[in-house]
Amino acid sequence: MTYDVGFVGYGLMGKAHANALARLPMFFPDAPATNRRIIAGRDEDALARAAERYGFDRTTTEWRDVIDEVDVLYNLTPNDLHPEPSIAALEAGVHVLCEKPLASTLDAAEEMVAAAANSAAQAACAFNYRYVPAVTLMKRLVEEGALGEIRHFRGTYLQDFQADPEDSWIWRNDADVAGYGRVGDVGAHTIDLARWLVGDVERVAGTLSRFVEERPHPDDGTPTPVTTDDAYGALLRFESGAQGVIEGSRVATGHKNTNAIEIIGTDGAVRYDVERFNELELRGADDRGFQRISVTEPSDPYMDAWWPAGHGIGWEHSFVHENYEFLTAVDAGEGYEPGFADAYAVQTVVDAIVESHENGSWTTV
Amino acid sequence: MTYDVGFVGYGLMGKAHANALARLPMFFPDAPATNRRIIAGRDEDALARAAERYGFDRTTTEWRDVIDEVDVLYNLTPNDLHPEPSIAALEAGVHVLCEKPLASTLDAAEEMVAAAANSAAQAACAFNYRYVPAVTLMKRLVEEGALGEIRHFRGTYLQDFQADPEDSWIWRNDADVAGYGRVGDVGAHTIDLARWLVGDVERVAGTLSRFVEERPHPDDGTPTPVTTDDAYGALLRFESGAQGVIEGSRVATGHKNTNAIEIIGTDGAVRYDVERFNELELRGADDRGFQRISVTEPSDPYMDAWWPAGHGIGWEHSFVHENYEFLTAVDAGEGYEPGFADAYAVQTVVDAIVESHENGSWTTV
Amino acid sequence: MTYDVGFVGYGLMGKAHANALARLPMFFPDAPATNRRIIAGRDEDALARAAERYGFDRTTTEWRDVIDEVDVLYNLTPNDLHPEPSIAALEAGVHVLCEKPLASTLDAAEEMVAAAANSAAQAACAFNYRYVPAVTLMKRLVEEGALGEIRHFRGTYLQDFQADPEDSWIWRNDADVAGYGRVGDVGAHTIDLARWLVGDVERVAGTLSRFVEERPHPDDGTPTPVTTDDAYGALLRFESGAQGVIEGSRVATGHKNTNAIEIIGTDGAVRYDVERFNELELRGADDRGFQRISVTEPSDPYMDAWWPAGHGIGWEHSFVHENYEFLTAVDAGEGYEPGFADAYAVQTVVDAIVESHENGSWTTV
Amino acid sequence: MTYDVGFVGYGLMGKAHANALARLPMFFPDAPATNRRIIAGRDEDALARAAERYGFDRTTTEWRDVIDEVDVLYNLTPNDLHPEPSIAALEAGVHVLCEKPLASTLDAAEEMVAAAANSAAQAACAFNYRYVPAVTLMKRLVEEGALGEIRHFRGTYLQDFQADPEDSWIWRNDADVAGYGRVGDVGAHTIDLARWLVGDVERVAGTLSRFVEERPHPDDGTPTPVTTDDAYGALLRFESGAQGVIEGSRVATGHKNTNAIEIIGTDGAVRYDVERFNELELRGADDRGFQRISVTEPSDPYMDAWWPAGHGIGWEHSFVHENYEFLTAVDAGEGYEPGFADAYAVQTVVDAIVESHENGSWTTV
Repeated sequence: MTYDVGFVGYGLMGKAHANALARLPMFFPDAPATNRRIIAGRDEDALARAAERYGFDRTTTEWRDVIDEVDVLYNLTPNDLHPEPSIAALEAGVHVLCEKPLASTLDAAEEMVAAAANSAAQAACAFNYRYVPAVTLMKRLVEEGALGEIRHFRGTYLQDFQADPEDSWIWRNDADVAGYGRVGDVGAHTIDLARWLVGDVERVAGTLSRFVEERPHPDDGTPTPVTTDDAYGALLRFESGAQGVIEGSRVATGHKNTNAIEIIGTDGAVRYDVERFNELELRGADDRGFQRISVTEPSDPYMDAWWPAGHGIGWEHSFVHENYEFLTAVDAGEGYEPGFADAYAVQTVVDAIVESHENGSWTTV
Repeated sequence: MTYDVGFVGYGLMGKAHANALARLPMFFPDAPATNRRIIAGRDEDALARAAERYGFDRTTTEWRDVIDEVDVLYNLTPNDLHPEPSIAALEAGVHVLCEKPLASTLDAAEEMVAAAANSAAQAACAFNYRYVPAVTLMKRLVEEGALGEIRHFRGTYLQDFQADPEDSWIWRNDADVAGYGRVGDVGAHTIDLARWLVGDVERVAGTLSRFVEERPHPDDGTPTPVTTDDAYGALLRFESGAQGVIEGSRVATGHKNTNAIEIIGTDGAVRYDVERFNELELRGADDRGFQRISVTEPSDPYMDAWWPAGHGIGWEHSFVHENYEFLTAVDAGEGYEPGFADAYAVQTVVDAIVESHENGSWTTV
Repeated sequence: MTYDVGFVGYGLMGKAHANALARLPMFFPDAPATNRRIIAGRDEDALARAAERYGFDRTTTEWRDVIDEVDVLYNLTPNDLHPEPSIAALEAGVHVLCEKPLASTLDAAEEMVAAAANSAAQAACAFNYRYVPAVTLMKRLVEEGALGEIRHFRGTYLQDFQADPEDSWIWRNDADVAGYGRVGDVGAHTIDLARWLVGDVERVAGTLSRFVEERPHPDDGTPTPVTTDDAYGALLRFESGAQGVIEGSRVATGHKNTNAIEIIGTDGAVRYDVERFNELELRGADDRGFQRISVTEPSDPYMDAWWPAGHGIGWEHSFVHENYEFLTAVDAGEGYEPGFADAYAVQTVVDAIVESHENGSWTTV
Repeated sequence: MTYDVGFVGYGLMGKAHANALARLPMFFPDAPATNRRIIAGRDEDALARAAERYGFDRTTTEWRDVIDEVDVLYNLTPNDLHPEPSIAALEAGVHVLCEKPLASTLDAAEEMVAAAANSAAQAACAFNYRYVPAVTLMKRLVEEGALGEIRHFRGTYLQDFQADPEDSWIWRNDADVAGYGRVGDVGAHTIDLARWLVGDVERVAGTLSRFVEERPHPDDGTPTPVTTDDAYGALLRFESGAQGVIEGSRVATGHKNTNAIEIIGTDGAVRYDVERFNELELRGADDRGFQRISVTEPSDPYMDAWWPAGHGIGWEHSFVHENYEFLTAVDAGEGYEPGFADAYAVQTVVDAIVESHENGSWTTV
């Protein structure tokens, strides 16, 4: 069958997912067919332009219209808008791919998990970095035991798009909308990878930093309060006993998208930085140092679909792979991972970090 | 108007250009519209599958059919098939994008240049690496004088896809088809960049290496003679007085696609390696060392069309940019660069390297 | 005058400091002259060999003999032996250079600070990494304001010399001798640099990990308990408001001596890894990316004493610079930094990390 | 016995070798003992300062005095002064370590080889880069067959100490003194490593570049002609059939001491850059990418003499190792390598490159 797909939201994530859907037929011909049917948003002009660019049949300013018309809903809205459309869709039997973090509060996230549990539809959360071939290969290496027992997880997600106090205010600066600052945005990615690759987190200590108290509004330059953190740091103790140290920032001058993780085990270690998208560094059991691997061989995850060895892909391709896996699961009617329950587990870690910051104590997840 | 496009050839380059055409509307909406109308090849089954994947309306085993039906011909065949369809198309007023090197012999290339000169249609040669944003930025830096007067050009293009003597025979191993070995294939890319970035080459010394004399045929494993070089090296003297040192190999163990160039001037230097696709290293006039630049800002060439800073693109995107520029020139009716004359100039350098190898002397281009 | 120097301890640090003293006359001819007079230790045979190699006049098994004979004492013993000889020397007016951490307990460290305060002699603590030219240059950059206001400090000190549970037991595994595990050994280095480069630490959260419970004794292979941590992680809040994230490990497979720090400010960032000894990465205010700087110019700290630009030095040279500064201060009679008070301040941070680990709460320093 | 050593020359090489001799007893206690007896030079004041710094008993302005007094002569003069003192010493049975290149003309070099052949004394040429542990390890890997059959040698030696036309004139700019420009100075190093690691060179093509015609004299700023090349490039064909591409420059903006080589074989590849002194990159037969190896383990060449793993050494240490090997050979009375014959073989390649440049043809070595 051909799945009718609807988006709520048409910003960066709308562009990334629309592109992913458009590219599946040529590169993953066994992916279920989709029809980009309807896209919802507030600003009718911008929406119309987006619909044309992204190849949607029609637009709406009412997200409920989307649910009525589609088989699959992509919820690409700011965090506080994740629950209501997602829950409504699941209640209507419509599959959902919701952007991360799951919600702007843990309570809302819990309601979403409940809705997912009560629905036969797939409820997916869009942690796209699992679908970077180098990261998927990391998972394969961990599962094969190439690293032995994991002792250290190190994760950073450093950016500088708000390093300058004069950088415009964005919705991610607003606690009411975003719920969290860096810890909920990039921290959620790091924590999802930590849980996926190393296992459950038992307890955390965390700290949040706000370096800029207000920023000019993009519309008129009005100083607007920043109510979310600019940076976070956290210590993790995994259930396995492994130690984790993670941090994230939007004011880390010199870093564009340093989403980097390292996993160190008894027998080996592996590390990756999204800025060198196609490169994985592996120190195998018999190696004297880290091998710099070009994750572009046909035997590497997803790479047989693309180009010859050494001809790398980019950030957007992680969305293609994510959509491929999601739609395949939708078609199979079987549990996509990471689902809402995984995303909720991530959010409990995020919340525990915030709580640790506020209470000044280690917090059990 | 919407341009009808036809491909001759459906291999890797077919895939790369079909993808490029498919992506233009979403990312470069001002690009002329195209219709993937017809694709030609020999093997009907494979062709039919390619046509479906790549989105062509119909197939043919006669390349002349393509010329009859289209406004633009993409000649994506092995080198010895470049001249005839390209010339026929140009004579028919059909625009041509021909893969590099221009032809398998310099004489044939000369005929192609003549046909281009006599036609009002665009005659483009597909040197896609000019359209890598980091490389386009290099050009901008050179033109702005950021490097001062150029003294050194260094270029390598190292791969290992035939490092093992048991790697299958391919048409690039056949002198009758390919005309040249590494010097014509990857050497042509390096020389095109050298000419574009530094200027005309006055004379060369060259050497060719053949390390493997025969390889198993992919069909039945029959030992099949290798009649082209596995590797080349050359010294260049530019008209400006600059010194160039270049080399290429398909047996360079450990290298997947090390297409790397460095330009050193009196005031600065810049270097780039395709394997780190989004990274440019620049040593500016006031710098103490090379800056590692993420060429992903909206102000970087072509990058405003794609993703936020730090969210890199991949090899295939160079084809999108190339197609964008080519089709824009087709629509404008104005001279695309690099055209057949540029490609011919590249080939004269390639030929001079071969001649130097054979004669044992420096050769004037 | 020529200073008589005595060592207590003849292990790795004995070798490093003896070499440093031996090299001063040739490379820093304005350094005060020294005479390596006496060296103390327990094992008479090993001591005799060390004395010959390191150029000492005579040996003793009584550390008190050293104090009687010298102007300057180098206390290069395990941590629990730092206080008594150091205090005795200071009371006798003998200058002291004591290895880090200052002591195996905070109480003992406090007594050492008191002794230093009551003595006219210099009381130095051997944080040699301050004297790596790239690190000294970092300090210069911070002080010149090249980075603006500091927001992030990131420090790791990863090694794998005990990654294998079969690696021999060493005194650093014994809490009674070492006092602390990684946090006191490599953590002390990281924290000293943090304080020097960013300022005082206000509060911390910390965690300690012990992955291996016993190790074979080097003498006979007897399983011997490990009573110190194999790894630590900590969050720092500086008095300035900056955020710090640090960690250290002796079981970090693949890392030999990854003593790496990064400082990120409003205007720039700088980072350094001891494993690439002569390289500093600087992202200045006008740069698009990190410059990779070869800290080997005559204008770089200490480098005019050595070799031409690009001809790098090694780890041992940090000790030469340290000894140069220490002896110069001894000769001037003026306060060397870092002294015992600085080392004590470092140790309060170390202790707070341990306390946070034990209490499960953020701890004020 | 203790060997009396005399230097002719007290510049950079005097400093490097004096330091090496001074360090041997502490780190290589089995090295033959030496006495720095006499040092010769022209400028009496500078010479006196050097003698004091470098630890020589006395000075002379007559190099013949040195030969009369010593067992071992270090000839550290500009190239045109290599032959006479070296030959005189060898005729007197005095061992010689002569700096590279062997002489400023091939004829003079030939006379030196003859003198060496007729003398029982050791005649060594100071190609110190063979004694960098990472390079010695490269040799070990090649000999063990870890790379298989060698196909490619790539060598660059890029510096920028004369990138600016206003950089002072030095004796290396004078053809009468230096004999050669870059090709004889840094080219000799690269060619020595090429021959040592890959084997004899059969024929070459070469090019020389002079970008700056005159430079200010250091004494008074007088414009002084530059009569040697600023840069060279060359293609090598080894007797084994391997292909070599090498180049060197003193005007390569952004490069301080990029003495880098790569050897690519059928089974593996290895590469090294002196600027990252302790790092070797190895792509072994079973590896997917280059391993970055810290050549600091006790099992690595010469490294058991120094510091623990991960605590790297610097450029000067290559001279310590060189002196250790040289003096050990002197003491054993057995053939040190590389000797004058090796250095002559290097010079024949250098000369062939110059000849190729002048004649415009490939030149047989």
